[in-house]
Amino acid sequence: MKSKLIGTVLALTLGAGYALNAMAQAKPKVMVEQRQAAMLLMAKYLGPMVGMAKGKAPFDAKVVKRNASYLTVLSQMPWDGFDASTSSEKSRAKSDIYVDTAKFKEHEEHLRHEIRQLVAAARGGNEGHIKQAIGAVGKACGSCHEDFRQKKE
Amino acid sequence: MKSKLIGTVLALTLGAGYALNAMAQAKPKVMVEQRQAAMLLMAKYLGPMVGMAKGKAPFDAKVVKRNASYLTVLSQMPWDGFDASTSSEKSRAKSDIYVDTAKFKEHEEHLRHEIRQLVAAARGGNEGHIKQAIGAVGKACGSCHEDFRQKKE
Repeated sequence: MKSKLIGTVLALTLGAGYALNAMAQAKPKVMVEQRQAAMLLMAKYLGPMVGMAKGKAPFDAKVVKRNASYLTVLSQMPWDGFDASTSSEKSRAKSDIYVDTAKFKEHEEHLRHEIRQLVAAARGGNEGHIKQAIGAVGKACGSCHEDFRQKKE
Repeated sequence: MKSKLIGTVLALTLGAGYALNAMAQAKPKVMVEQRQAAMLLMAKYLGPMVGMAKGKAPFDAKVVKRNASYLTVLSQMPWDGFDASTSSEKSRAKSDIYVDTAKFKEHEEHLRHEIRQLVAAARGGNEGHIKQAIGAVGKACGSCHEDFRQKKE
């Protein structure tokens, strides 16, 4: 009975194509959607901070602290979605990702380093430092996109 | 120069349609994409735990701890995307969301309560309690979907 309930709940909760087995890999299409979801949410929470860094929006230390902590978690999520099995799926990811894996990993670590710096700056409370750290996070995103994401057509 | 750099980085980083002003609201289409991204990632990290709770995958306390902590953060993200301005966008969200806002909020709080219970159970380390708590999180997702998400056509 309990097992049946959980089964129903699962069907209600999860979309088709999700592997039930925790060890089984998700389907390539699902992995692409998942990594894109993580990127989209990083943009959601970085965007307003970049607005602040550019002076286009009022600086809000509380929002920066919250968004930086969100980025800490979100920046752990996209990478397992860049699996070689996804290379023929439609996306802007360059196939170099699956060739120069060390460089891709370096970009990941650089991003997470800059996010840690931002979290530290946000704790420190110096607006100038925070804005610099926001810029550095954006630059980390951009430099990986430059190497590993196709330009928009 | 620095401002120009940040501008370039922003253009590289963020998709079109994202409001630069931290106080400005994102466009309805973007808000739908963002809330769907948060839901998709919740499914990514809940799915394997449900597999464990059902005995379809080996129980892994470390994965449960990590995924439960991810859910804690992800479950804060979808709600601002359910803005009345999105009601005419294509999605499975029922328009009741913008009418019975108290009930919708209750579901949100229920989900977050169950996730806190799961985090506590994961800390406690009792496999049976953890599996029950996983089921309760899935049930919280399902009961909100039942009320506020259209069935698949």
